[in-house]
Amino acid sequence: MQPSLAEILRDAKVYDLEQPRFSGMPIHPAHRPGYFYALHRRHQDGFQPEVNGLRTGAAGMLTLMEHSGTHLDALCHQACGFTMYGGVPVAGTETPAGFTELGVETVPPLLGPGVLLDVAGWKGQAHLPLKYPITAKDLQDCAAAQKVEVAPGDVLLVRTGFASFWDNEPVYLQAAGVDKSGTLWAADRGVRAVAADNMAWDVPDQRDPDSGATLFAHVYLLPKKGIYIMENLNLDALARDRHFRFAFIGIPLKFKGATGSPFRPLALV
Amino acid sequence: MQPSLAEILRDAKVYDLEQPRFSGMPIHPAHRPGYFYALHRRHQDGFQPEVNGLRTGAAGMLTLMEHSGTHLDALCHQACGFTMYGGVPVAGTETPAGFTELGVETVPPLLGPGVLLDVAGWKGQAHLPLKYPITAKDLQDCAAAQKVEVAPGDVLLVRTGFASFWDNEPVYLQAAGVDKSGTLWAADRGVRAVAADNMAWDVPDQRDPDSGATLFAHVYLLPKKGIYIMENLNLDALARDRHFRFAFIGIPLKFKGATGSPFRPLALV
Amino acid sequence: MQPSLAEILRDAKVYDLEQPRFSGMPIHPAHRPGYFYALHRRHQDGFQPEVNGLRTGAAGMLTLMEHSGTHLDALCHQACGFTMYGGVPVAGTETPAGFTELGVETVPPLLGPGVLLDVAGWKGQAHLPLKYPITAKDLQDCAAAQKVEVAPGDVLLVRTGFASFWDNEPVYLQAAGVDKSGTLWAADRGVRAVAADNMAWDVPDQRDPDSGATLFAHVYLLPKKGIYIMENLNLDALARDRHFRFAFIGIPLKFKGATGSPFRPLALV
Amino acid sequence: MQPSLAEILRDAKVYDLEQPRFSGMPIHPAHRPGYFYALHRRHQDGFQPEVNGLRTGAAGMLTLMEHSGTHLDALCHQACGFTMYGGVPVAGTETPAGFTELGVETVPPLLGPGVLLDVAGWKGQAHLPLKYPITAKDLQDCAAAQKVEVAPGDVLLVRTGFASFWDNEPVYLQAAGVDKSGTLWAADRGVRAVAADNMAWDVPDQRDPDSGATLFAHVYLLPKKGIYIMENLNLDALARDRHFRFAFIGIPLKFKGATGSPFRPLALV
Repeated sequence: MQPSLAEILRDAKVYDLEQPRFSGMPIHPAHRPGYFYALHRRHQDGFQPEVNGLRTGAAGMLTLMEHSGTHLDALCHQACGFTMYGGVPVAGTETPAGFTELGVETVPPLLGPGVLLDVAGWKGQAHLPLKYPITAKDLQDCAAAQKVEVAPGDVLLVRTGFASFWDNEPVYLQAAGVDKSGTLWAADRGVRAVAADNMAWDVPDQRDPDSGATLFAHVYLLPKKGIYIMENLNLDALARDRHFRFAFIGIPLKFKGATGSPFRPLALV
Repeated sequence: MQPSLAEILRDAKVYDLEQPRFSGMPIHPAHRPGYFYALHRRHQDGFQPEVNGLRTGAAGMLTLMEHSGTHLDALCHQACGFTMYGGVPVAGTETPAGFTELGVETVPPLLGPGVLLDVAGWKGQAHLPLKYPITAKDLQDCAAAQKVEVAPGDVLLVRTGFASFWDNEPVYLQAAGVDKSGTLWAADRGVRAVAADNMAWDVPDQRDPDSGATLFAHVYLLPKKGIYIMENLNLDALARDRHFRFAFIGIPLKFKGATGSPFRPLALV
Repeated sequence: MQPSLAEILRDAKVYDLEQPRFSGMPIHPAHRPGYFYALHRRHQDGFQPEVNGLRTGAAGMLTLMEHSGTHLDALCHQACGFTMYGGVPVAGTETPAGFTELGVETVPPLLGPGVLLDVAGWKGQAHLPLKYPITAKDLQDCAAAQKVEVAPGDVLLVRTGFASFWDNEPVYLQAAGVDKSGTLWAADRGVRAVAADNMAWDVPDQRDPDSGATLFAHVYLLPKKGIYIMENLNLDALARDRHFRFAFIGIPLKFKGATGSPFRPLALV
Repeated sequence: MQPSLAEILRDAKVYDLEQPRFSGMPIHPAHRPGYFYALHRRHQDGFQPEVNGLRTGAAGMLTLMEHSGTHLDALCHQACGFTMYGGVPVAGTETPAGFTELGVETVPPLLGPGVLLDVAGWKGQAHLPLKYPITAKDLQDCAAAQKVEVAPGDVLLVRTGFASFWDNEPVYLQAAGVDKSGTLWAADRGVRAVAADNMAWDVPDQRDPDSGATLFAHVYLLPKKGIYIMENLNLDALARDRHFRFAFIGIPLKFKGATGSPFRPLALV
């Protein structure tokens, strides 16, 4: 008898692609102060034997930008000419409580084939040079060397090797990224979502040679193509074990109207 | 050729068990103010053609208790006699930034078999009576009627029928829950985690007839058995389609030291 | 020898006009969740004799809307036809971090003559009827009965008698307020700022008979006249002791760009 | 006829001793992330002519540590041997919502004589050397040179000259401070409160030569003497105009149970 999906999931090897969340982790300057957790209810506070017996509880409060830590960008996060994906105008959809269209609650769970291009590993480097721009040719050659293809519907993960700098913001913010040619190449493959082990997928500060604008992927993938961008993944273990194809699970939370969601993506083999 | 896990996941029917997150959703009194999202960066703010071309971005800030909305309780959330699961003492593990042991970042992704006991449906009710205590006999008879067994390692979901009151806090806070006998029955089955479509799994305000204490499951399942409790799931669609066995996916985030995590659980069939 | 200002201040009788701040105090629906304080750093956490000797510290975190509790409204808080006081347009002055003009940091300390019109006391009532509209005639007659005049530059405090409902949000939100005629009368006197012991100075939900719009004082005093509005003061002790003229001290904090500031106003006699 | 207190206050020259509050201002490492203001309700959001006429409002949200910016430390902020001022034990007074005794809401408005010792100015320096320890002799000699005495009940302000580094956290955190001898000298004068234009009054990282512990003033003035400490004042204008005696006004807010309060102190001459 074939195993059920539940059994396959239970028995799969799981790679956890989320970076740990703590105050002090790297934050994009636009999203400071980023993340804070305060444990204010302590166990001793709730000690009331007459009501609770020997039971006590503890709990805290999270204050965080939705673009802190490992997260997915919703389609409302970026616009081009004040128009978002599908021609939805910014005007009339922005409210103090978030967007009435294209908020992160409209993103379905991402479940399906994933592919890793370990560019740093392919080049034999622990990490790529600071701000190194990964080109279409890099991605293509890396895929060829890895003997994988990037197919329509895939979730594409690109490894720069900077995940280990998660406790070192100054370096992490200067990680390598994917340049315009690489982004176009990924979009041409018809991928569903892209991710990297850096802050923004894009190369920090790099400008589009044509328009002069920064963050090319952000203005192209989200508003033009409807391809999700996922940031700050840790791809080291997956690369170490040379799993270049796998089942990807990425499930953003339904924060109504928010422009992104922290999440804990997984790769299963 | 057999489909890969990635293909199976891609083609599975997905039931989304997360309630939407918005300011005004029901919050347990101990976890107020609960949840707030403020969109403060608007697209027009970032309009700088010379730097960004036509690209603009928007983003906001989340302020939330980790026990708001659909979430999982970490083992450090509850103690019995100031001792947590595995004999870990509270003393020395509590810090302003959370717990140094048993924090939610230590919870592995929950992937595997799930079982739904639709108690409300089995009784032919849209929802159980307010504060109705679901007993071991209820669970057992419901399982028998549904022709399912609750097996070791299962994630057990119990449906009270109160998910549709997610926009009605006064009623939702008086939902039905699982009483002591039901909790013991579940633990005796060896389940890995339990969940219900209510605020606390337990019956609101109900006291253990033996100890006189409230929230029996919280003092039993977490500190004694290491069985996770998940709260505020929406089980209506799964019940409507009568999927009583399925693959469960529940992936809490790694908020270091936190006592729980919002998440978006899924059932796949 | 005459006493110095310092000595006069030291020896003055001080009336504290601030309501206490706590989670659960009344909040205007537009400013929920309002206020929260979490004490997360406890004394025992910092016990490190080798570094700190016997010293320990404790501290927490405030999450609050600037219009929570006793506070002053900055001129950028309200606009009429998207124009703020002095003809400053909203466009170009709003940023994610607040206003670049007319933010609360531009409000000088309010130090000078204050006058109390105890309308509730004058009518012999513990508090005025719910949503009672205080008219120009009420203010005029009350002033006459109290034998005080409202003069240019005065800070005008109007007492409805609802301060004692500070622990009772449903009632407090239906307090009496000052109607259009009363607001016009106050502005005609040339006052510098107005305040009441209610949520908004204005009568809750009352509409301008001419324009049909709510919150007349908010659209008139702030954008048209540059007269500050102060809300949620406690005027009970001052009225009890029948101090109708006094030195008023109100010092909003310089939260850059914010639309208001919590503060602790005083009356000195 | 003598002017009234109200008239004197109205006509006094006011020195504003508060530093502006903005995200990015210097924060003590123990109080990070410090301060954040998010303007999420914009004027255009509330444009509803049928309800509000031409009126629109804007508002935001503050997230801040109570020890951010210019502030006063409450007596519960520090303990010695787990005992606070007046012999109040920490045990039993700490709750998730703050302290049940000695919270900042118990601090009266500080109104009365103030004295400035401009140590930097007396030494002819724009600012004292980094981490310079101001001694009792410095304070005494400075007072003599300024021809002022520090008297019982005074609020004592000590100027290091570092206020102008308020936009430069790395330098500001290494400002000069008052050493143990200076703190003892101040306490011996019987002052009511002390303040400096630095982060902590104390010299950063300096250890008590006797006990080896840091932050001597924090363990001495607050728990032992009941003398308030005020931090991050800007004393430059007051010093420039050589006002060494003045009327001090410092009014902390009544955040129930909190360990301190941001405020806007003034000096009047």
